[in-house]
Amino acid sequence: MATSNALSSDGTIAGHLVLSTWHFGRTANRAAWEALARAEADALDAVEAGCRAVEADPEVTSVGYGGLPDAAGEVTLDAVIMESPARCGGVACLRGFPHPISVARRVMEKTPHVLLVAAGAETFALQEGFTPRDLLTPAARKRWEEYRRDHQRGQSPEHAASNHDPAAEGHDTVGVLVRLADGRLAGGCSTSGLAFKLPGRVGDSPIVGHGLYVDPDVGAAVGTGHGELISRVCGTFLIVEEIRRGTAPLEAIGKALERIARSCRPLPRRQAAFLAVTPDGRWAAGSLRPGFQAALRTDAIDTLLPPQTVLLGDE
Amino acid sequence: MATSNALSSDGTIAGHLVLSTWHFGRTANRAAWEALARAEADALDAVEAGCRAVEADPEVTSVGYGGLPDAAGEVTLDAVIMESPARCGGVACLRGFPHPISVARRVMEKTPHVLLVAAGAETFALQEGFTPRDLLTPAARKRWEEYRRDHQRGQSPEHAASNHDPAAEGHDTVGVLVRLADGRLAGGCSTSGLAFKLPGRVGDSPIVGHGLYVDPDVGAAVGTGHGELISRVCGTFLIVEEIRRGTAPLEAIGKALERIARSCRPLPRRQAAFLAVTPDGRWAAGSLRPGFQAALRTDAIDTLLPPQTVLLGDE
Repeated sequence: MATSNALSSDGTIAGHLVLSTWHFGRTANRAAWEALARAEADALDAVEAGCRAVEADPEVTSVGYGGLPDAAGEVTLDAVIMESPARCGGVACLRGFPHPISVARRVMEKTPHVLLVAAGAETFALQEGFTPRDLLTPAARKRWEEYRRDHQRGQSPEHAASNHDPAAEGHDTVGVLVRLADGRLAGGCSTSGLAFKLPGRVGDSPIVGHGLYVDPDVGAAVGTGHGELISRVCGTFLIVEEIRRGTAPLEAIGKALERIARSCRPLPRRQAAFLAVTPDGRWAAGSLRPGFQAALRTDAIDTLLPPQTVLLGDE
Repeated sequence: MATSNALSSDGTIAGHLVLSTWHFGRTANRAAWEALARAEADALDAVEAGCRAVEADPEVTSVGYGGLPDAAGEVTLDAVIMESPARCGGVACLRGFPHPISVARRVMEKTPHVLLVAAGAETFALQEGFTPRDLLTPAARKRWEEYRRDHQRGQSPEHAASNHDPAAEGHDTVGVLVRLADGRLAGGCSTSGLAFKLPGRVGDSPIVGHGLYVDPDVGAAVGTGHGELISRVCGTFLIVEEIRRGTAPLEAIGKALERIARSCRPLPRRQAAFLAVTPDGRWAAGSLRPGFQAALRTDAIDTLLPPQTVLLGDE
């Protein structure tokens, strides 16, 4: 296994730091940074604002409004938000609400629970005053109709989905990590899941320790890519545990990617990527395969980091 | 924090071993043992048979048929099964199918996914030939009607549920760990979740690394009790990681309980308990509070271990 193109901070960063996944991470960072500029800056507010900006963008076909539907044509959204083991919440398979990150935050704040799914999560969102909205854009509907045409060879679309190779389709969760100048951490992630997924399929994104983990004394990590790869090894929890034992963030990400590569044989030709940040402002980004991008925002930096690969697996 | 009444093997056990949660763990162990007695004994078959026996028992009000419903009167079931990171599957919020452990196994065997929820999981179960059944027994309906009478003081039952203290109600997941004489491991767990839960609430049971984790080279752990306590710290994944680093199973369980006690302050007066077993046949059981029981079955032993407590928290 080759570790190449290490992509991480050389040292600590003093001010606020926002680190988000993929090219649309810049959209997230901009919104998060604006939230931080307001009085009473709060890491959770910044995380929520960052995720909401991408959820609202119809051009992003893997998150929120405009996300590609499941095999049955339904857009179902997953999200999680976290600032500590005691303070976290998620929603999975949520239909008809464009901002699952905000519903997840409400699960954290208003219930003793960690995860609400499907119809129950929708009832909760309604009770909490969120406004329902049709999430299937004309462009997403067109893509779904093409998918159906291509895959209906005597199979129901649901059945076709389980044989469908989702590698060619979007799996680009928006993940946002915020580290305030005083060391406080928060994170969130949000996705519409695998395009044309088997209805009811839930990936890593809404699950604490799969798509996101935050320990305020240790660090925060968020994942993106093919969710099952991350769920099978509790990817973000593993990264935070490694950091707890003194491993540097980039090396911790490398260990999670290595665990994926070792545990899932034959390793499917799919992406898994992580971001990590510590209370003292060290950060890192790494992925199993080429193509991953991370957006970094600090007082001095506002950039989309070039595609890098930490671990090339065993190709 | 006091560590008392250590409950674990003095050494390794040579033959097959089945370790299950709570008093109904004896029911699970009996069915698992019978499955192992058949030719071509398979750890997964034993796990599935053990969970199915408890799922089918209407007297067990926290698992399968006869499980207490959510606040809206609906019985929703969660389960997961696992033999390795590459081989695991779960279902959450499954209505109308009495054996979620078998549907979970089918998710593992027939799809590339790790978790299916709600209506999508039900469609999948139907397509896979499982027979739907009304799961609300007359006794469970009566308990739900009493709950509704007690909690309807101008609140909807859903709303009441979030203020309802579920500590007084069942949260007794059946967890089954099987270790074959040749060292192969498998595990499963199954539950109807917190009695009268907020609809859509999903606890630790169906989530890989929360309610169950199995690494064939390292060990297996299963959790029961108040699911959120376990989910917040990825309890079973944490135990297996500790064992990976050379920690004995009982000490690994103690570390997970300690993490719960440290992370969730003030620690709610709720139970969390774990079982763990290694490929070489070391096993342990421990809980945060008194009252937990584990059922052990080996060639020489068939017993319900007396209630023990590994960690008394900070009471």
